[in-house]
Amino acid sequence: MTKKIAIIGASGYTGAELIRLISSHPEMEITALAANSKAGLAMSTVFPFLRHLDLPTLVTWEQIDFSQIDLCFCALPHKTSQEVIPHIAQHTKVVDLSADFRLRDPAAYKEWYGNDHAAVELQKSAVYGLTEFYRDEIKAASLVAGTGCNAATGQFTLRPLIGAGVIDLDNIILDMKCAVSGAGRSLKENLLHAELSEGYNAYAVGGTHRHMGEFEQEFSAIAGKPVTVQFTPHLIPANRGILSTCYVRGESGEILQAFYDAYANEPFVKVLPFGEMPSTHDVRGSNFVHIGVKDDRIEGRSTIVTVLDNLCKGSSGQALQNANLMLGIEETTGLMMAPLFP
Amino acid sequence: MTKKIAIIGASGYTGAELIRLISSHPEMEITALAANSKAGLAMSTVFPFLRHLDLPTLVTWEQIDFSQIDLCFCALPHKTSQEVIPHIAQHTKVVDLSADFRLRDPAAYKEWYGNDHAAVELQKSAVYGLTEFYRDEIKAASLVAGTGCNAATGQFTLRPLIGAGVIDLDNIILDMKCAVSGAGRSLKENLLHAELSEGYNAYAVGGTHRHMGEFEQEFSAIAGKPVTVQFTPHLIPANRGILSTCYVRGESGEILQAFYDAYANEPFVKVLPFGEMPSTHDVRGSNFVHIGVKDDRIEGRSTIVTVLDNLCKGSSGQALQNANLMLGIEETTGLMMAPLFP
Amino acid sequence: MTKKIAIIGASGYTGAELIRLISSHPEMEITALAANSKAGLAMSTVFPFLRHLDLPTLVTWEQIDFSQIDLCFCALPHKTSQEVIPHIAQHTKVVDLSADFRLRDPAAYKEWYGNDHAAVELQKSAVYGLTEFYRDEIKAASLVAGTGCNAATGQFTLRPLIGAGVIDLDNIILDMKCAVSGAGRSLKENLLHAELSEGYNAYAVGGTHRHMGEFEQEFSAIAGKPVTVQFTPHLIPANRGILSTCYVRGESGEILQAFYDAYANEPFVKVLPFGEMPSTHDVRGSNFVHIGVKDDRIEGRSTIVTVLDNLCKGSSGQALQNANLMLGIEETTGLMMAPLFP
Amino acid sequence: MTKKIAIIGASGYTGAELIRLISSHPEMEITALAANSKAGLAMSTVFPFLRHLDLPTLVTWEQIDFSQIDLCFCALPHKTSQEVIPHIAQHTKVVDLSADFRLRDPAAYKEWYGNDHAAVELQKSAVYGLTEFYRDEIKAASLVAGTGCNAATGQFTLRPLIGAGVIDLDNIILDMKCAVSGAGRSLKENLLHAELSEGYNAYAVGGTHRHMGEFEQEFSAIAGKPVTVQFTPHLIPANRGILSTCYVRGESGEILQAFYDAYANEPFVKVLPFGEMPSTHDVRGSNFVHIGVKDDRIEGRSTIVTVLDNLCKGSSGQALQNANLMLGIEETTGLMMAPLFP
Repeated sequence: MTKKIAIIGASGYTGAELIRLISSHPEMEITALAANSKAGLAMSTVFPFLRHLDLPTLVTWEQIDFSQIDLCFCALPHKTSQEVIPHIAQHTKVVDLSADFRLRDPAAYKEWYGNDHAAVELQKSAVYGLTEFYRDEIKAASLVAGTGCNAATGQFTLRPLIGAGVIDLDNIILDMKCAVSGAGRSLKENLLHAELSEGYNAYAVGGTHRHMGEFEQEFSAIAGKPVTVQFTPHLIPANRGILSTCYVRGESGEILQAFYDAYANEPFVKVLPFGEMPSTHDVRGSNFVHIGVKDDRIEGRSTIVTVLDNLCKGSSGQALQNANLMLGIEETTGLMMAPLFP
Repeated sequence: MTKKIAIIGASGYTGAELIRLISSHPEMEITALAANSKAGLAMSTVFPFLRHLDLPTLVTWEQIDFSQIDLCFCALPHKTSQEVIPHIAQHTKVVDLSADFRLRDPAAYKEWYGNDHAAVELQKSAVYGLTEFYRDEIKAASLVAGTGCNAATGQFTLRPLIGAGVIDLDNIILDMKCAVSGAGRSLKENLLHAELSEGYNAYAVGGTHRHMGEFEQEFSAIAGKPVTVQFTPHLIPANRGILSTCYVRGESGEILQAFYDAYANEPFVKVLPFGEMPSTHDVRGSNFVHIGVKDDRIEGRSTIVTVLDNLCKGSSGQALQNANLMLGIEETTGLMMAPLFP
Repeated sequence: MTKKIAIIGASGYTGAELIRLISSHPEMEITALAANSKAGLAMSTVFPFLRHLDLPTLVTWEQIDFSQIDLCFCALPHKTSQEVIPHIAQHTKVVDLSADFRLRDPAAYKEWYGNDHAAVELQKSAVYGLTEFYRDEIKAASLVAGTGCNAATGQFTLRPLIGAGVIDLDNIILDMKCAVSGAGRSLKENLLHAELSEGYNAYAVGGTHRHMGEFEQEFSAIAGKPVTVQFTPHLIPANRGILSTCYVRGESGEILQAFYDAYANEPFVKVLPFGEMPSTHDVRGSNFVHIGVKDDRIEGRSTIVTVLDNLCKGSSGQALQNANLMLGIEETTGLMMAPLFP
Repeated sequence: MTKKIAIIGASGYTGAELIRLISSHPEMEITALAANSKAGLAMSTVFPFLRHLDLPTLVTWEQIDFSQIDLCFCALPHKTSQEVIPHIAQHTKVVDLSADFRLRDPAAYKEWYGNDHAAVELQKSAVYGLTEFYRDEIKAASLVAGTGCNAATGQFTLRPLIGAGVIDLDNIILDMKCAVSGAGRSLKENLLHAELSEGYNAYAVGGTHRHMGEFEQEFSAIAGKPVTVQFTPHLIPANRGILSTCYVRGESGEILQAFYDAYANEPFVKVLPFGEMPSTHDVRGSNFVHIGVKDDRIEGRSTIVTVLDNLCKGSSGQALQNANLMLGIEETTGLMMAPLFP
C-alpha cells in the first residue's frame, strides 16, 4: 500500500530533492508539504522545475494533519528541527535531515553547535542515518538523523579502513571539495554566481567545520579510542558533488581489500579498479558513491578519492533510502536512476 | 513482454542519454550497444557515469544480431546513418537520431547537407519524429527520423501559431540560445571549457543553420505556402538546454489560446500563465517543454519563450517517446522523471 | 598633474571595477572611497582582490572632503544618486553611473522609474555619457550620466544605422544576452551560482526593461520621430559580457558601410570583416566593442551582433573614458589593456 | 630604449598571455611571433581577443631574424623547446616556458620525462625561473627555465618553511586544485565544457605528476637531504587559478613568521593575516600570490593555503618578471595590473 509522506522544510534544496525523488517512487505519495516562510504558495512558484507535478500547496508545519502521515521528512535548518520534531505525532516516523540529532553526546552537540540541545530525550532514540552501516537500527527506528554530506563522504572512505585496522589513525588527512548546493539556498555574497564561478577557496580551515563532530563520534566508536582527522573543506564552482581526497599511511592493497570486503554487496557503493579515479560528474543526480585507491610515491602511503552527490546520496537520497527501510519498502526503491551526464 | 533494444552510436552524448533513460524503463532491455570506433570497450570506460549498470560491451554495428532486436536507436553522425540503416533487418524498427531522414524532399536534403541522399527509397518511408504532431504516423512507422533539437524547439513554438493563423508569417524571428552538449562530444577549440565558459556567441548567422531545412519543410506544409523565418542560434556556456525567443506579429491573447488548444492534453508540454517566463534549468534532464507568452510594448507584437533539454526532449527523450509508440508501449513510460535542479 | 578622485558607492561591482582601472591610470589618484553601509572597513575586506593596493579606508559620502577632489564617480543605486549628487561641491566634476540622470525628460524618467525626479534642475545640466557620440558635450560637462549597459550595447549597434537611414525603423528587434554582474552584488535567489549556472532565461519581456527609456530617447532624437524597438534581455550564466543580436530590415552592405563610417577612427570600437561574428570572451575585462554584420537568407534583412563587457565599456570603463575627457586627459589613458582570455 | 621581443609558440594560452601582458609594457615591443602549425595566420584569427593590437603575422620559428631580437620567449610544448632553443642566436636572451630546462640533473629529467635530454650542455647554463628565489642568477642569465605552475605554487608555500626549519619534512601533503587553462589548448574530451563543467576529479594521483621532479630538486637542495611530498593535483571547473592546500606538522606562529620574513619585501607575494584564507578569484589575471595560514584542531599541525593565477604568475607573468630582470628593466614593470573581479 502506498505510504503517505509529509515534508517539512520543502522550500530548500534538500526538500526539493526529496520531491524530485519521491515523484518517481512507486510506493510513496506526498500528502503534505510545509515551509512556514512560504506557506500558501504553490510549489511551482517556489520551484518551477516541479511545475509538471500535482503537489499540495505549502502550509505551515503546524497545519499538517499527521494522523494520515506514515513518515515525515524534516528538512529544516539546524536548531529548528529539535523544536519541531517533538510535536510530530508518535505514530509518524521521522527522517531528519538537519544536524540536530546526529551527535549522541549532548556535550559534543553543545561543543559544535554552541547551544544546549532542546530535545535531549528524543535524541536518545535517534539512529545515525548512514544506511550502509546502521541498516538494522534504521529498520527499527522511529527517528533517523541524516548525516552531514561531508560527514557521509568521509565515512564512506574511512570507516572500512579504521574497522579493518589497515591505516595509521594518527595520520589521516581529509581534503574535501564541495559543490555549492551544500550551502543551501542561502543569500550570501560568496554564493553568488559572479563571485563563486571562476573562484574557489578553503573554508572552516583548521578542524572547525561542524561535521568534525560526526567524524570524531563515529571514528572513535569504531576504533575504540579517540580519533581525529585533519580536515579542510573547499567551496568549488559546481552545483552538485563532493570529492574527498584522503591521505593515509597504509598499504594500498590492504586498503582496496578492505573496501571490497565492506562494499561487495552494497548496491550504491562502487569500488573502482586499482588506480582508477572517480569524478563528481559520474554520480551527479544519483545515489551512488564511487571510490578509487592508489599507492603513493612514498612507500607505505596511499591516497583514496571518494565522490558522491551531496544533495542526493549525501542528503535527500540517503534520507529516502532510510525511509524505505523504516517503512518496510525495498531499500533501493526509487533510487536506482542513472546519474545525469553531461 | 520486455522489448529488446539496440543502440548504434552509443559512444556519443545522445547514445549515453538513451542508456540513461532506458535504464529506468520497465519494458525495455538493452541487448546490444555499438560504436565502431570504440568496439571492444566497456561502456563504463567510455562513460564512467554508467558504471553501476550491467551493459553489453561495445561492438561494431555489423556485429549486432538483429534477429533478436525489436527496435534499434541509431545515434550516428549525419551521413553515416543513411549508410547503415538499410542494413538493419526489416523486422527491427528504427528510430534515427541523425539528420539523414528528416527532409522529405531529396533536393532540400542536398541543399542543406551538400550531398545526394544515399537511401532515397528508405527516406520515403520515414516519418518525421515530432511526436506531438505525428503521433498516428509514428505508431505505424518502422523508421522514424528524430528532429533537430533546435528544430523541435522552434516547432513547439510556431506550429500551433501557424496552424491557428494568429501570426504574420512574414515577420517571424527565432533567436535561439543553445547549450553546448548540442554540439556533441566533438573535439573543437570553441567547445573547450577554457573557451566556452565565460564566453558566448552567435553562429550560423543569416539563416545558414541546417535546421532551417526542417523549419521550412514543416512550416510551409502547415501554412500551405512557403514560410521562412529569420533564425540565429547562439552557443551558451551551459551543458543542457535550448531557449528560444520568438518575436512575432500577433495578439498575445490569441497566441496563448492557440497554445492552450494545442497542448491541453499533452503530458510533456506546459503552457505557462500569461507573462510568466521559463528557464532552461526548469527542464534540465527531463522530457518537458515549457512555453511562456507576453505581449510587447509595441501594439500587435508578442514574444514567446520556449525551453527544453536538447539531449532529452530535443533528442533522446523524444526518440524514446517515439519508440514507446512504435512498440505499443504507453507513450510516457520511462519519461516522467522530474528535472534535476539545482 | 595627477587628478584627485573620489568614488561614492565603492562597495559594488562598478565601484570595484573603477578602482581596478584607476589603479593602473598614470594621471589619477584615488583620494576618497565611500560606501555608507560599509564605512570604516578596509577595501581589502570588502574586495580582497584589491589587497595589493594601498587604498583609503571606506567612509560615508558625507565624510568626504570635496575641497581636494577633482572628480567624483558616483556608483550608487538608482534613486540614491539624485539625493547625493546635489551635495557634492560645485568645483568637483561628477560622473554618475546610476540611471538617475540619463533621461532628459522628467516625464519619461517618471514613466520608467516610477517616482518624481528629486533633482530636476541638476538633470538639465547632465550630459548623456555615450562617449563616442557625445564627446564634445562631455568635455565641457560638469555632470555626465553614464548609460545603461544594455543601452550602450544597443546604441553601438543602432545609432549609426538610424543616422545613416539604412534600416526600416518599424522593424527593429534587439535580443540581448547579459552576464550576471550586470545585476550587481545583490542577494537574490536567481543570482546564486546554484540557480544561474546551468540555467538561463529571458526577463523584462515585452519592452518593460528600463533601458528602453534610453533607447527611445536617443533613437527618436536621431530619427527625428518616435522610434521603438522590440527588446528582450536574457540572463546568461557568465560573469561579464553583453551580446546583442539585432534583427533589421536593411542591406548588409549598407549597414557595414555605415559602421565603417561611424567607427573608422574610434579606438575602442572594432567593426569585424563581413560575416565574422564576435564573442563576449574576446572583450572581457576590456573597453572594446566588437561588431559583426551578416545578411540573412531572407532578402533585405540583416543581423548585427555586438559585444562589450558590461562592467567595463558598459559602465566603469565608459565612466573613466568620460572622466578623462572631462579632466583634459587623453581619452584612452588607462583603458587600452587587452581583454583577459581565457 | 624599447627592447625587441620574439615569442615562439604564440598560438597557445601562455603565448597569448605573454602578448596580453607585453601589450601594456612600456619598454617592450613584440617584433616576431612564431607558431609553426599556424604560420601565415594573423594573430586576430588565432586569438580574436587580440584583435585591437597591431601584431606581426605568425611565422615559423625558423623564419625569425634573431639579429634584431633582444629576448625570446619560448612557449613551445615540452621536448620541442630543447630542439629549438639551441638554434636561437647567442646574443638573444631566452625565457623558456616549457619543462625542458627546469631539472638540472639529466637523470632526473629522464626519470620524469622519459627521454634523454637533447641539449644537455645548454641545460647547464639554465637558471631555474622562480624569480623571488633566484633573482641574482636570473639577472645574469641568458637562459631562464620557467617553472611548472603547480611547482611554483607549492614552492611559494614550502620553500620558506623548509628553509626556516619550522616543519617536519617527512609529513608534507600538498593537495592542489588547478583550473583548466593549465592543460593548455589541447583537444581532449575531459577538457570539453560539457565534461569539465559541473565535474571535478583528481589526476596523476600517487606522486606521478611531473612537477614532482621540481619539488624534489628544489626542496632537497634547500633541506640538504632528500625531501618528498605527497602531492595530488585536481582538475577544477574554472579557467584560471591554482589553489594549494598544504598540511604540515609545525607551529602556525612560526610558519607565519617564516612567511613574513621571506616575503616582507616581495611586491607580488601577500601573506594574509593569521586565519584569513585566499580565493583564486582574488588573483585572477594578475601576478600576485596570496598565502593564508591556520593552526589545526590537532596540536602541532597547520594548514597553509596558497593561490596564484596559473597562466600569469604561474607561467607568463613569471616569465615576464624574469625577462624584466634579464633586460635590466625594473622587475615589476607591466605586471602591477589588478586582478579581474568578478
